[in-house]
Amino acid sequence: MQTCSKERVQNKIETFAQFGDTGNGGITRFSLSKEALQAREEFVKRMEALSAEIVTDDMANMYATIQGTEANLPRIVIASHVDSVRNGGNYDGILGVITAMEVVETIVTEKIPHRYPITAMIWTNEEGSLYPPAMMSSGVVCGKFDKAKMLASKSAEGKTFGEALEESGYIGDEINRLNPKDYRAMLELHIEQGPVLEAEEKQIGVVEGVVGMVNYRIRTYGQSDHAGTTPMQYRRDALLAAASAIKYLHRELDKLDSNLVYTTGEILCHPNVHTVIPDFIDFSLDARHKDPEVIKQVVEVIKNMPKEFDKCQVKYEEAWARNTVDFNDELVGFVQKSADAYGYSSKKMYSGAGHDAQYVADMMPTAMVFVPSKDGHSHCEPEYTSVEECWRGINVVLQTVLEIDKK
Amino acid sequence: MQTCSKERVQNKIETFAQFGDTGNGGITRFSLSKEALQAREEFVKRMEALSAEIVTDDMANMYATIQGTEANLPRIVIASHVDSVRNGGNYDGILGVITAMEVVETIVTEKIPHRYPITAMIWTNEEGSLYPPAMMSSGVVCGKFDKAKMLASKSAEGKTFGEALEESGYIGDEINRLNPKDYRAMLELHIEQGPVLEAEEKQIGVVEGVVGMVNYRIRTYGQSDHAGTTPMQYRRDALLAAASAIKYLHRELDKLDSNLVYTTGEILCHPNVHTVIPDFIDFSLDARHKDPEVIKQVVEVIKNMPKEFDKCQVKYEEAWARNTVDFNDELVGFVQKSADAYGYSSKKMYSGAGHDAQYVADMMPTAMVFVPSKDGHSHCEPEYTSVEECWRGINVVLQTVLEIDKK
Repeated sequence: MQTCSKERVQNKIETFAQFGDTGNGGITRFSLSKEALQAREEFVKRMEALSAEIVTDDMANMYATIQGTEANLPRIVIASHVDSVRNGGNYDGILGVITAMEVVETIVTEKIPHRYPITAMIWTNEEGSLYPPAMMSSGVVCGKFDKAKMLASKSAEGKTFGEALEESGYIGDEINRLNPKDYRAMLELHIEQGPVLEAEEKQIGVVEGVVGMVNYRIRTYGQSDHAGTTPMQYRRDALLAAASAIKYLHRELDKLDSNLVYTTGEILCHPNVHTVIPDFIDFSLDARHKDPEVIKQVVEVIKNMPKEFDKCQVKYEEAWARNTVDFNDELVGFVQKSADAYGYSSKKMYSGAGHDAQYVADMMPTAMVFVPSKDGHSHCEPEYTSVEECWRGINVVLQTVLEIDKK
Repeated sequence: MQTCSKERVQNKIETFAQFGDTGNGGITRFSLSKEALQAREEFVKRMEALSAEIVTDDMANMYATIQGTEANLPRIVIASHVDSVRNGGNYDGILGVITAMEVVETIVTEKIPHRYPITAMIWTNEEGSLYPPAMMSSGVVCGKFDKAKMLASKSAEGKTFGEALEESGYIGDEINRLNPKDYRAMLELHIEQGPVLEAEEKQIGVVEGVVGMVNYRIRTYGQSDHAGTTPMQYRRDALLAAASAIKYLHRELDKLDSNLVYTTGEILCHPNVHTVIPDFIDFSLDARHKDPEVIKQVVEVIKNMPKEFDKCQVKYEEAWARNTVDFNDELVGFVQKSADAYGYSSKKMYSGAGHDAQYVADMMPTAMVFVPSKDGHSHCEPEYTSVEECWRGINVVLQTVLEIDKK
């Protein structure tokens, strides 16, 4: 069994951790920022040293390719992103790019024969931290988002994504975009961003797809009055009604499938003054499950919710929804076979978080590999996966590439 | 029975409604703003026309006095404020000043004999809208607040109250402050700011005091994790815990005295992102009752609250508290007697809201008169009390002054 180099993996993690280092164990590296451009330069330097040919497309996505032994075969691409959220960690995204670089480096330095060309890729602006939405470039390349709208996306400071793209110097030709004709498959390694692998003591997550989700806004309507002068019986308190609605939703949703996850993460209160009875609450409900039937049941629970709690009207509105994405069976099988070949413990699972791979999956064969996240933390500075765990995941990607290459 | 003039009351309401008119039926008239100074000029013009002698004190509180027939008697003062909250109404505060002016005008024009000097007064910065806290000047004059600290109070734009005071041109001598030697009693008429008088079809509120209150912050501590990747059984959701705490508090507090009012008006959620499980909630609990025993029971409920809801720790902290203030029995009796004399329906009640009169009550005999608030609305543009209702209240204050004058 071929393996990559643990020392090199550690060196890559430590090197990229410098670009946007917050000094607190994490990074802030917004897409196309100075720090993100430093990461791109490091990628170029390392890939050029391996004689890879580098191109970019019109969204500044980067492709570094080494040729295979057979002519006219499409490429196998390993991809992720180098940008982060504010005060993010050293693994989300960047570990997938490190994986791509390390697989190529191992193949080159170990002279592992391969028929297909192999590409290490960086997706631009996966997090959407400065320029929303998330997964912007994969959305454009895979036909989910309108490019003109994306170019107009503005940061809080008023700069557009289009301007940042121009300034970056990384704009290339649209013809270089990832596409199903020139590419055989895409693989993405990512940290789990949840506690399951660690809790179940599994080394590898064999990702079967990305769960579908719905996102609702739930609103309660009361009456604002003075906290000191309004007897209880005259009150219509929107926050009390929201508390009742949250408790009700938990009670009802807990009756559904045990793999369902749902979250009321955001709450807005008006006027939000301690001496005034709230007249309006707006809270979010995010629910995710791989089975569309369970999502339907969630929607039924919301629709059957009482129209009134505590004398306050309750309304709901679907903010957005996405269907479950299933990854390519053959590729998922290769990931499983590769993990087994190394003797790594593994678990088949769906991703609860979104990834560029979910858009790509609609266009061409795609699969993902997860490695454990310490305490399930992600999008924060304590985000951590040991070098050993990263190394195992990268080995699985290496072996999966070689499995694809066999056919 | 002497009565004041309904036409003059209407004219005064309409005139003062111009100073800070929002165009939506209400006013924004922050203390010492251009609009508030216009209101003061109007007060000066009208009081000088009645030959009142006007002085101000070091907090720019204004005193317009007409002499009585007997020498060396202390003054009877009728007082309220001309400042408002943002997008406030045409009655809160200003109606008490209009009352003072109209009582003096009636006494002067009707040549009603009176032994005591009578003072119409404006308190500076009751609302504390730009320069917190509320009831700032009465707090200073009555020894509740440190003057130097108050002068340093800053608006959001960075101007201090001391600077605004200097610029106003209304600073006078500290010796002119309201005090128990030179003043016999203070009366304040105010809108109820609640729905009780209207609902019970009472024309006059005979205010016996201002209820005591406690204000707590209640906090729940959970764990932030990704909404899509964290199974329900691993979660510690601070918002779910807060919803449970709010429901628990309502259940327990509803068992206490039916005159208790309590409010959870403000809620803060961290990180307040729809894709993240909340790790921290902080909400307010404001509880008011005239009986300190009931307030003690409220504190007991808070202290006996479970230390944990939904696997999240729950903590509480007292933010502040104030004791119940009882107004002067003799004056309250005069108010009741006056309302009865006119044949007005009335209700003895405690104020749930704070007023300058509550600080003054600790220094000298004080009483308040309430008139109904349409739909209980206050601190908003729809705030409304009919001219007829205002007029009745002012008559009660006039008669109360004359009752005091008899002794």
